[in-house]
Amino acid sequence: MKGISVLGATGSIGTQTLDVLANHRDKFRLVAMSVGKNLALAEEQIHQFKPPLVSVMTDEDRKTLASKVPEGTRVVCGEEGLIEVATAEKAEILVNAVIGSVGLAPTLAAIEAKKTIALANKETLVTAGHLVTEKARENGVKLLPVDSEHSAIFQALQGERMDRLHRIIITASGGSFRDKSRDELNGVTVEDALKHPNWSMGAKITIDSATMMNKGLEVIEAHWLFNLPYEKIDVLLHKESIIHSMVEFVDRSVIAQLGTPDMRVPIQYALSYPDRLEFHKGQQLNLWEVGKLHFAPLDMERFRCMAFAYESGKQGGTMPTVLNAANEEAVELFLNNQLSFLGIEDVIEKALERHERIDSPSLADILHVDQETRAFVHSLIK
Amino acid sequence: MKGISVLGATGSIGTQTLDVLANHRDKFRLVAMSVGKNLALAEEQIHQFKPPLVSVMTDEDRKTLASKVPEGTRVVCGEEGLIEVATAEKAEILVNAVIGSVGLAPTLAAIEAKKTIALANKETLVTAGHLVTEKARENGVKLLPVDSEHSAIFQALQGERMDRLHRIIITASGGSFRDKSRDELNGVTVEDALKHPNWSMGAKITIDSATMMNKGLEVIEAHWLFNLPYEKIDVLLHKESIIHSMVEFVDRSVIAQLGTPDMRVPIQYALSYPDRLEFHKGQQLNLWEVGKLHFAPLDMERFRCMAFAYESGKQGGTMPTVLNAANEEAVELFLNNQLSFLGIEDVIEKALERHERIDSPSLADILHVDQETRAFVHSLIK
Repeated sequence: MKGISVLGATGSIGTQTLDVLANHRDKFRLVAMSVGKNLALAEEQIHQFKPPLVSVMTDEDRKTLASKVPEGTRVVCGEEGLIEVATAEKAEILVNAVIGSVGLAPTLAAIEAKKTIALANKETLVTAGHLVTEKARENGVKLLPVDSEHSAIFQALQGERMDRLHRIIITASGGSFRDKSRDELNGVTVEDALKHPNWSMGAKITIDSATMMNKGLEVIEAHWLFNLPYEKIDVLLHKESIIHSMVEFVDRSVIAQLGTPDMRVPIQYALSYPDRLEFHKGQQLNLWEVGKLHFAPLDMERFRCMAFAYESGKQGGTMPTVLNAANEEAVELFLNNQLSFLGIEDVIEKALERHERIDSPSLADILHVDQETRAFVHSLIK
Repeated sequence: MKGISVLGATGSIGTQTLDVLANHRDKFRLVAMSVGKNLALAEEQIHQFKPPLVSVMTDEDRKTLASKVPEGTRVVCGEEGLIEVATAEKAEILVNAVIGSVGLAPTLAAIEAKKTIALANKETLVTAGHLVTEKARENGVKLLPVDSEHSAIFQALQGERMDRLHRIIITASGGSFRDKSRDELNGVTVEDALKHPNWSMGAKITIDSATMMNKGLEVIEAHWLFNLPYEKIDVLLHKESIIHSMVEFVDRSVIAQLGTPDMRVPIQYALSYPDRLEFHKGQQLNLWEVGKLHFAPLDMERFRCMAFAYESGKQGGTMPTVLNAANEEAVELFLNNQLSFLGIEDVIEKALERHERIDSPSLADILHVDQETRAFVHSLIK
């Protein structure tokens, strides 16, 4: 029985993680979870899984929830609460499924507590990849990917030697606007952007798919997860999202992981790794039903966020922190109708241009640059 | 430095195997080889690779060749010669690339001599899978696939547990006539049949691709290589031959091996296994250049040989021996314009219908049924 902690249990990845746990009650036990604003869902989850520890955002939420949960559940709150969930004694694996840079500190704490990290929070590696991977190495802790693309690469690498890898090829659906030219992107609405063709995900990541920033963040994440230079990371447009990503070895052999788009597969793989478990609810992939798979090269001029991401990643230091913070704020502004869709790119470009890079930043540097960048983005709007 | 013996060095797989050896002179050394009728090519190969031992088909060929080879090369002949090559003392790996059931006895001898077997000769497993796999187990000998499909499955299984496998999916290009209906197959010529769309291979296997018997034999081979019931072996039409085959696990995750069609990749993998080596001459797979991959279900009524193969495989015993022997003779007759293309299927059907199955046949039983079936096929033509 593996003890599992989940940061962000009420989010898209969080709820799917809990579904995986529900399918394998004999293998996994939820020992701690953190939740966001959806206290009604949190209450349901608590009654279903009876975790001994739950963390909420505010002390007010803590009071609200505490009166409604079973006796065995302790409710905590705030940043300290997140850390407590991340380091819960009986947890073997921490699933980090929160959105944004709030996932960083709990991840570092969990690594120090020798928890295996199942990482769905991209920002942790994007903003502090050097700190997180170094701490994981020092503590002998595994970082397991939860993103479908990184899980695909990780699965394709099983039984292989890393020094025989030639490149990885991350596939990209192209998001809601993949068939639109840049001209056609003028005036697209939030509603349009939220219609992702293949995956059912949260709002932030769906917008990031439309701008292709999601893929850019994945490139940076892959750089850290697999310890690869950016020259060995390619991106390929593949609109069906059936091939989740690929690895090419030095002998020209390519290993790919495929499946119907269902995040529960990579989530379950991270939890069961190195073993695999049955997934009865999952839909079998029959390629003769799909008929065709399409591939196209990625145009960095069409998808400017990809260019920003590669460039920030190669420059390193605090540049990816700026990229990520500017993007988070810009997407938030877009979702609130305070910024146009193409304005997201402009805001990120400006934030990157003005920033003076700090090499090998400390956690304090990163948090400072993160805040400063967010303030800068807002200053552009007022 | 691995010592390599090659049975069938002048054939399609044989010459490509020697090309792999030539690319890695520091890793592999050719210690023995057998050749067929092409003595001119054999002579060239001998001068290039200087193997200490060469076997030819007849004593006459032996005399012809012996006078033309360097001093260090000994020339032997006949079935004994094949065995001598297969068991050559300094060989670590035997590449069995002969065509037809002649490959069986040398393979068994090589297994007893504890050689790793790189198997391109399908008939060995099709006709005597139970004997070969049992002997390999007893001797602790590895059977490594050389066929691109089986190599793909083998590669996809690295680092995985066999008991977590749900099914394998063998891809089939469909061969020269994949777009023709059964009616349109009336009157097709040998020349038409020899035009394989993707792979450059020998005549026998190219015809087998057109009838789909090649895929049928691969299904039976996969049954033995991976110890799987036929219910767990699916075939999928995929005309580009880019996805070489796939494995589906119990968690619905599918791992595939892909590449541009080049037999040197699976050959080299069998020789370098479990490592991979550079393959500079190979063409990199860029799926955006390919654009689309197509998939279609396999129609067993359109491709009757597939139905024969599954049925023979499930019945077991000497049925696959009949299937294979009848097919070999029928293809030979077709290549000599003594039988129509659709006549190949009819001949195989008749041979299977008349045969009384022997369960758990001995090697003698197999060889007897093989000869008897060939004689029967010829009796149909006269």
